[in-house]
Amino acid sequence: MKNNFFDRFVPKENKFFPLLSQMADVILSASELIIACVQAKNHAEAVELYKKVKDQERRGDKLQAKIFEELNNTFITPFDREDINALSSRMDDVVDHINSCAKRIMLYSPKVMPESARLLAQLVRESGECLTKAIDELDVLKKTPARVTEYCEKLHEIESKADDVYEHFLIDLFENEKDAIEVIKLKDILHELEKATDTQEAVGKIIKTIIIKYS
Amino acid sequence: MKNNFFDRFVPKENKFFPLLSQMADVILSASELIIACVQAKNHAEAVELYKKVKDQERRGDKLQAKIFEELNNTFITPFDREDINALSSRMDDVVDHINSCAKRIMLYSPKVMPESARLLAQLVRESGECLTKAIDELDVLKKTPARVTEYCEKLHEIESKADDVYEHFLIDLFENEKDAIEVIKLKDILHELEKATDTQEAVGKIIKTIIIKYS
Amino acid sequence: MKNNFFDRFVPKENKFFPLLSQMADVILSASELIIACVQAKNHAEAVELYKKVKDQERRGDKLQAKIFEELNNTFITPFDREDINALSSRMDDVVDHINSCAKRIMLYSPKVMPESARLLAQLVRESGECLTKAIDELDVLKKTPARVTEYCEKLHEIESKADDVYEHFLIDLFENEKDAIEVIKLKDILHELEKATDTQEAVGKIIKTIIIKYS
Repeated sequence: MKNNFFDRFVPKENKFFPLLSQMADVILSASELIIACVQAKNHAEAVELYKKVKDQERRGDKLQAKIFEELNNTFITPFDREDINALSSRMDDVVDHINSCAKRIMLYSPKVMPESARLLAQLVRESGECLTKAIDELDVLKKTPARVTEYCEKLHEIESKADDVYEHFLIDLFENEKDAIEVIKLKDILHELEKATDTQEAVGKIIKTIIIKYS
Repeated sequence: MKNNFFDRFVPKENKFFPLLSQMADVILSASELIIACVQAKNHAEAVELYKKVKDQERRGDKLQAKIFEELNNTFITPFDREDINALSSRMDDVVDHINSCAKRIMLYSPKVMPESARLLAQLVRESGECLTKAIDELDVLKKTPARVTEYCEKLHEIESKADDVYEHFLIDLFENEKDAIEVIKLKDILHELEKATDTQEAVGKIIKTIIIKYS
Repeated sequence: MKNNFFDRFVPKENKFFPLLSQMADVILSASELIIACVQAKNHAEAVELYKKVKDQERRGDKLQAKIFEELNNTFITPFDREDINALSSRMDDVVDHINSCAKRIMLYSPKVMPESARLLAQLVRESGECLTKAIDELDVLKKTPARVTEYCEKLHEIESKADDVYEHFLIDLFENEKDAIEVIKLKDILHELEKATDTQEAVGKIIKTIIIKYS
């Protein structure tokens, strides 16, 4: 794993941007899986899908560790070390929320999964696609700051939509679900999806901070 | 919206301090409204007040966007760009918590609003007044760091009081409310007020960090 | 309390490392108490133990204030002022979570405390021991970055274990506890312990960031 001495002088873009892109890809893969997971037909299917989400979560952890190691072994980085670390660590948090959601679906076995869960999962993926585009342009940030800013604002919009879906799910839940334990379960499961979009917006805010510093 | 070239050299104080003061004013306005909102006599009144809180939330978002744009178009800033961004973004979070509280009151329609809700809303306003004073002295921070530090400590005290009110509300709730769904509703609504004071204290911590850097 | 002028030039290690070590000690003391607290035989014993945890929480607040004051009165610090502040402030948050847990045990008086509460409290202490070791080596960070990195990774492992314990507690709770209000109480109490290990991991992440900057 250790870089050799000369490797430290490899053109700086070659190291961090592909790793961050891979992290964005982990988010995308996990978000595809969570869409299936909220629609699982039975417990066995939910368990199977959770295992696949968990694989992505481990892939995210490994990437985060690799980025940390590279930061320790590289003299020149394209942005401040702390910004790369923050970016990667927050993207890893997104995967953690998706993983928590899948874990809870498996653990809690709610009686019925509401339609809003599918809508939220789709917003998580939409947000993931937007994040991927922003990350893929980090290496040309100085040329296209306006476009990257636009992606970050789109992340904010998607987060607002997810808020609305979550809030309307809550009204419906409180009006129609009389079993308090079922209320607790569904609220917790969908909350993780809402937090996933929140955290994706937070990644967008870190990117905006990088734009402030470097463009 | 774009600054012209010469505008970038306008004395630096002219730009950011008024914008941050306006953001503090959004917090104050929203906190006035939330005091009325927790005392709304019926659902229609709660809806009306929520709409007004939402207006303030949108005003906060616009200010945050404007501060971000100014940071991108200004050569010299009174503090590090990142600090101004953090300050403004966290103040915007305060407004978001107040907005969430109002939204939940409207959406959940709890049977009875406890007295603690009014007490918490008043602490949110008290905290907002204190924050406004701290923000208004940012431009003379080097002359009066002790006074600004004092405001930040006051924010910490108010947050402790809010914690106490929230905890005592919880004891009472668990002792006297037998309807679990009502427990979930009230806990969530008052929690947003408690988080609003938490976040105001967090703004105080950012200001203290700025004092560490610049005084 | 004020340092005199010459005191500002005292060798820099003499000031901050002992204060941060004392903060780690507050975490350790509070974690010892919380192990007893989750096993309290009656309400009177829970109240007594809560008071002792609260004493540690106050000790943490005082240390945090002292570190803040020292940062204001010292010309040369071993790491960036902001990093020392972040470290100390986040360690204080760990104590706050332990304190919240004890407070809730006292306030909610749940019927039965599950075995998982004891397991989580022990993980909080284990994490506290690991954190203490990492903090104690901060002054020789440049010599032993690998060992400190190892402690930070151990904090991550403990946090994962705590996640598992908490999740399995939740399955059991939802399967066997039919009283929804009891579900809310226990979930909230154990959640604070899980957040305590989360926050200890977050301290580890700050230390890793310091390693990135200084080693």
